[in-house]
Amino acid sequence: MTVSVRPRILSGVQPSGKLHLGNYFGAIKQHIERQDTGECFYFIADYHALTSLKEAEEKEAGAAAKNKSISPRPARQILAENVRDVALDYLALGLDPAKASFFRQSDVPEVCELAWFFSSVFGTAHLERAHSYKDKVARGITPSVGLFTYPLLMAADILIYRSHLVPVGKDQEQHLEMTRDVAGAFNNAYGEVFPLPDGVYNEAAVVPGTDGQKMSKSYGNTIEIFAEGKPLKNAVMGVVTDSTPVEEPKNPDKCNAFALYKLFSTAAEQAEMADLYRNPMKGAEGRGGRPFGYGDAKTLLLAKIDSYFAAARERRKQLARDPGYVEEVLTAGARKARAAAQITLQLVRQSVGMGTRPV
Amino acid sequence: MTVSVRPRILSGVQPSGKLHLGNYFGAIKQHIERQDTGECFYFIADYHALTSLKEAEEKEAGAAAKNKSISPRPARQILAENVRDVALDYLALGLDPAKASFFRQSDVPEVCELAWFFSSVFGTAHLERAHSYKDKVARGITPSVGLFTYPLLMAADILIYRSHLVPVGKDQEQHLEMTRDVAGAFNNAYGEVFPLPDGVYNEAAVVPGTDGQKMSKSYGNTIEIFAEGKPLKNAVMGVVTDSTPVEEPKNPDKCNAFALYKLFSTAAEQAEMADLYRNPMKGAEGRGGRPFGYGDAKTLLLAKIDSYFAAARERRKQLARDPGYVEEVLTAGARKARAAAQITLQLVRQSVGMGTRPV
Repeated sequence: MTVSVRPRILSGVQPSGKLHLGNYFGAIKQHIERQDTGECFYFIADYHALTSLKEAEEKEAGAAAKNKSISPRPARQILAENVRDVALDYLALGLDPAKASFFRQSDVPEVCELAWFFSSVFGTAHLERAHSYKDKVARGITPSVGLFTYPLLMAADILIYRSHLVPVGKDQEQHLEMTRDVAGAFNNAYGEVFPLPDGVYNEAAVVPGTDGQKMSKSYGNTIEIFAEGKPLKNAVMGVVTDSTPVEEPKNPDKCNAFALYKLFSTAAEQAEMADLYRNPMKGAEGRGGRPFGYGDAKTLLLAKIDSYFAAARERRKQLARDPGYVEEVLTAGARKARAAAQITLQLVRQSVGMGTRPV
Repeated sequence: MTVSVRPRILSGVQPSGKLHLGNYFGAIKQHIERQDTGECFYFIADYHALTSLKEAEEKEAGAAAKNKSISPRPARQILAENVRDVALDYLALGLDPAKASFFRQSDVPEVCELAWFFSSVFGTAHLERAHSYKDKVARGITPSVGLFTYPLLMAADILIYRSHLVPVGKDQEQHLEMTRDVAGAFNNAYGEVFPLPDGVYNEAAVVPGTDGQKMSKSYGNTIEIFAEGKPLKNAVMGVVTDSTPVEEPKNPDKCNAFALYKLFSTAAEQAEMADLYRNPMKGAEGRGGRPFGYGDAKTLLLAKIDSYFAAARERRKQLARDPGYVEEVLTAGARKARAAAQITLQLVRQSVGMGTRPV
C-alpha cells in the first residue's frame, strides 16, 4: 500500500509595484495552476520588501522633483499600497483562497524568529557567496544587513511550512540551494526537523521586455498585466523591432513582438503569423494592399493581451470596490499559515532546549 | 513644573553556566541594586546563547572523552539547565520579581522581528567594525551569521522596551554605541520611534581571576558565586601570588588575593590587611609566631566569600526545591515584557506601512 500525500507548495511574491507580463508568465500563472495540485502557501513578501523600500521612496521623490504632476508617497504608503495591489492582482488573476493560503509574510512573524535560529548554524562565508548579493554590491548598492541575510529569511519562509516544493524562477536557484543547506545545517546540529525542499523551475518562460532584454521593472521595459486603453497600446506599440523594410520578409524568431505573441496564441495562430512575417504580401488585399509589417503584428498582439486579461481586469475592479474582502482573505490565509508555522517553531524550540512559550 | 518619570532600565544576562565573582561584581550586583531606581527589565539571553551552544556541547563531549566520570549533555539540555541555573542564581542573589521584570529572552519573540526591521536600515560595514566580532574571527572562530548580526539582536533587546538606561560592562560600550546608531538609522528612515538609550558603565569592577587576568570563564580562572566547602577552598587557595618569602614585606597593591579581598571588606579591614602585608611579623604571636603570608590572606578571603554568599546559597537551595516558583516568576516577567514589546513593535509596523497583525 502506498500512502499518497499532497505536497506542500510554497512561494512568495514581492510587493514591488505593478505586475507585468514577466511576472505573470514567470511565476503567477504557475502559482495559480498549482493550487489544485497540493497544499499551497503563497505569501506577499513585505518583510523582504523593506530591504528596498527606502530606495523606492527616494525614486518617487526624485521623479516628483522632475515632474510636478507626480505626488511622491512616503515609504509607509508605498508598502501598504503595493501589498494591497499585489493581493488584488493575484485574486483577480485566479488565486482561489479556498484552495491556497494567501497571506502577508509579516502576519507570520515566526519566520523572523526561525531566521535567528538559522543564523546561529549558518556561516557568513556561505552568504558572501550569494550571487544576488554580490551582484547588488557590484552595482554599487551599499549593502544593508538585510540584503546580506536575505537568504536566511527566505529559508525560514520556506522551511517554516516544511514545504516540499518551491516553484521559483531560475534566478532563485542558488537561494533555494542555500535553503537546503540551512535545513541540513540545522538538522545536523539539533536533529531532523526539516525536510529538504525541492525547487520547481519554470525553464520556458523568459519573457522579453519591450526592448528585447528580459522583462523587468528595473529595465523599464515592462508591459503591465492590468494596463488597458491608451497606456497598454503605448506599451505594446513601443515594442522594439528591427529596421527591415515593411515589404521584405521578416524573421519571426528574432522579433520581440512575435515572442510576446507566442505567449498568448495557439500553435495555429503562431504558424499563421510566422507565415505573414515571411510572406508580408500574403492577404495584402485585406489590408488595403499594404504588406504585413511589425505594426500589424503589434496590433494583433495588443488585441490578444487585451482580451487575455479582460476578465481579470473586470474582476480586479470589482474586488477593489470591496477592501474588506481582501482583508478577509489575507486574514484567513494568515490564520492557516501561522498555525502551521507555530507547529514547526515549537519543534525547533524543543530541539534546542527551549520550552513551550508560556505567554 | 517638572515631571519625573522613572527610567526604564534594561539588561541581559548570558546563560553560560556557573556564575562567578566577575559576573557578580561586574553586573549582577548593580542589576539588583538598580531594581529600586527604575522600571527594570532583565532578561536571560537564550537566543544569544545559541551562537555558542554547539561549542559548549562539543567542549563537554571533549571533556567526557578524557574523563569517564563526566557525562556529556546534549545541547538542548545544556541550554535548558543553564537558563534555569541563572534564574535561580539571580533570584537567590536578591532579584525581586515584584520590582523587576525577569524573563527569558525567547519568551519575547518580538525581538527577532524587530531585529529584521533594523537589518533593513543598518549597513553590513557597521557590523564588520565590531570589536567582539573581529576578536572572535581573529581567535580562529568560524563566524556564524548570528555572531555577525548579534549587535542587531542586542539593539532590538534594548530598543524594544524603549529603554533609557542600560547597565553593562565596559566591553559592551561599542555594542551600545551601535544600538544608538541603529535607533538613529530607524528614526531617520521612518520617523521618531526610539529614544537613544544611555549606557551605564561600571568602571570600578574589574575583578581579577585566580591567575591575575580578568576573571572569565574562558580563561578558566574563576571563583564561582555558589561554590562552597572543598571546591570553594581549592579555588581561593589556588589564587596565584608571587614568590616573596613569607617573612618579607609584601605589596598588597600587586596581589590578586588582596584585590579580591577588597571586594568583600570594609576600608578598615582593608587597611588592617595591607598593614599585615607590609609588616608580616605584626601579631605573629596570634599565629604561633609565624609571619603573615599569602596563605593567611587567602584564608581571610575565603572566610569573607563564604559568609558574603551564605544567605544566597541557602536561598538558592530552597528555590531549587520548587521549580514551579521559578517558572511562575519567568512567566510573569515575560507577560509584562511582552506587553511592552508589543506596543513598540506596533509603532514600528505602523511607521513602515504594515497594519495591526490580524491573527
